Amino acid sequence: MRDVARRAGVSLSTVSRVMRGVPGVSPAVRERVQNAADALSYVVSRNASGLVTGRTCRVAVVVPFLQPWFFGSVLAGISDGLREADLDMLLYQVGDLRGQRGWSRTLPLRRNSDAVITVSMDLSAQECDRLDDVDVPLVLTGQHVPGRAGVSIDDVEGAAKATRHLLNLGHTRVAYIGSRGGAWLSLSSRSRLAGYRAAMAEAGLPEWSVLCSPGDEGGELAMGELLSGHHPPTAVLAEFDAIAVSAHRTLRRSGIPVPGAISLMGFDNHETAAALDLTTVDQSPRAIGAAAAALTVEILHGAAPPDRYVEMPTQLILRQSTSAPRRTEGLS
Amino acid sequence: MRDVARRAGVSLSTVSRVMRGVPGVSPAVRERVQNAADALSYVVSRNASGLVTGRTCRVAVVVPFLQPWFFGSVLAGISDGLREADLDMLLYQVGDLRGQRGWSRTLPLRRNSDAVITVSMDLSAQECDRLDDVDVPLVLTGQHVPGRAGVSIDDVEGAAKATRHLLNLGHTRVAYIGSRGGAWLSLSSRSRLAGYRAAMAEAGLPEWSVLCSPGDEGGELAMGELLSGHHPPTAVLAEFDAIAVSAHRTLRRSGIPVPGAISLMGFDNHETAAALDLTTVDQSPRAIGAAAAALTVEILHGAAPPDRYVEMPTQLILRQSTSAPRRTEGLS
Repeated sequence: MRDVARRAGVSLSTVSRVMRGVPGVSPAVRERVQNAADALSYVVSRNASGLVTGRTCRVAVVVPFLQPWFFGSVLAGISDGLREADLDMLLYQVGDLRGQRGWSRTLPLRRNSDAVITVSMDLSAQECDRLDDVDVPLVLTGQHVPGRAGVSIDDVEGAAKATRHLLNLGHTRVAYIGSRGGAWLSLSSRSRLAGYRAAMAEAGLPEWSVLCSPGDEGGELAMGELLSGHHPPTAVLAEFDAIAVSAHRTLRRSGIPVPGAISLMGFDNHETAAALDLTTVDQSPRAIGAAAAALTVEILHGAAPPDRYVEMPTQLILRQSTSAPRRTEGLS
Repeated sequence: MRDVARRAGVSLSTVSRVMRGVPGVSPAVRERVQNAADALSYVVSRNASGLVTGRTCRVAVVVPFLQPWFFGSVLAGISDGLREADLDMLLYQVGDLRGQRGWSRTLPLRRNSDAVITVSMDLSAQECDRLDDVDVPLVLTGQHVPGRAGVSIDDVEGAAKATRHLLNLGHTRVAYIGSRGGAWLSLSSRSRLAGYRAAMAEAGLPEWSVLCSPGDEGGELAMGELLSGHHPPTAVLAEFDAIAVSAHRTLRRSGIPVPGAISLMGFDNHETAAALDLTTVDQSPRAIGAAAAALTVEILHGAAPPDRYVEMPTQLILRQSTSAPRRTEGLS
């Protein structure tokens, strides 16, 4: 690196910035450094810097699944934040490992990473303790465990806000479709249901929740159940967008206009919600990821206490699937 | 590890299998090994095994973006495959780095990974050569460069197949909406357009393609353009599902029945396509990822030549957005 700096006529730290892709170096200087590096065939070596600092320069990110859109967005935010701090991301997808006792020990985290970030893992206290054995900072996202570092939204308030939106439109028969099972979601499931219940209780209205099975048809069947009650609801809040999309299918097939006869809203701001013009609650997973990376870096640098919790805001996204209830009764 | 094996009364390789989470060990034996490991506080160390093999036991995966669903699915497949081979995944999202000259040198790949897998990076020959400097095997997914290892679908044939589906239904005015710009997609963009053109030429019918700008409104505007022609098409193939979803919005707002007046189909089998009952072409990104991981492991073990190319099949998914054209003219 010293040779590159000498050849380009710049400081060592400038070479380091250019090599790491950190912004703030003028294009002309960047060009000069890269020409010098080209000439000297210089490639930054992570191992070499690791030997100097005694760190691995890697952060392990543990996710239950990679396919759902939510995880890609959180990872994008984490990736941005870690790169800014010149840290590599080791990624572990552990969905089908979770059933095994002591699954976290099968991950090669120890002496392989400087910190561990979990994404919506809904860890038990015992699992957290086990991850403490890795002996590096642990940052949880998508769940709040008192006394532990983490980044999450307030699911209770998010669901209460959504419910109040429907109540403020004038609805009084507001039903809720939640998810049954799906272990890794159960913490936010409980919180969102609690938020709905609190808002209904505050309005002095009876709650009406049905739980649907996981999978693509869960929402369809749950909506069918609501439609076969004595007095079907005029508004339905789904625990997350995928349930709302599935429930929407039942309404479309039955020719029940949305929001004409039934207002429908979800939670998450999945891209499918935009495609269906569905009102929802945005939780900015990318921002959650970026905040988790920033918090991890601060903890590693001793700039934040190891138990700092960051709460991220949620935002109601009004689209065309919710409106005031009609005066007349009936579904079509 | 020897102590764990002795305490549990099993072979060293059994302990290794349990620790790495590899299947094929009975629950009873797994339990015994874990109890022994618990008692001895044994945690597998990646570094220790690296010292023995002289390898990093890491594969670097380079993606342009993490947010689009496609990448999460490919990564899920790669993750499964690498874990099976006891390799860690280092993940680099380089979307906004691509503009910089020599971006690949800013990644700490050298002496940090045993192989590099790229996902839909649409690399130039020069970029490939630069990655060769890392001096480890390179496996490309989502693009085929002759003489290089890779896993991809045949985009030309996939689009031709989709076009033939519409032609076989009896459509003669079949239009195509492609994407303009979006550098990282341009290779598959060109291939899909070529497939559409080939199928139309084979049928002796005139082609009719419009290119839409990137972003959520691209398909909407392109569909508007098609609808304002002298003889609007009776069927439209979109280059990928997101364009079809956007185009679908224009049709919905205009009250034009799908597939009654216009058949519409996409490409990719995005989950939104399922939500909208959209006919599409499935390319199984998870299977692409799994195949890429398997190929990487084979190349590392010398079991496959370093330039093996694997072509993955595509599958037409028939849903409710395509049907035979109506006998009468007119859009509603």
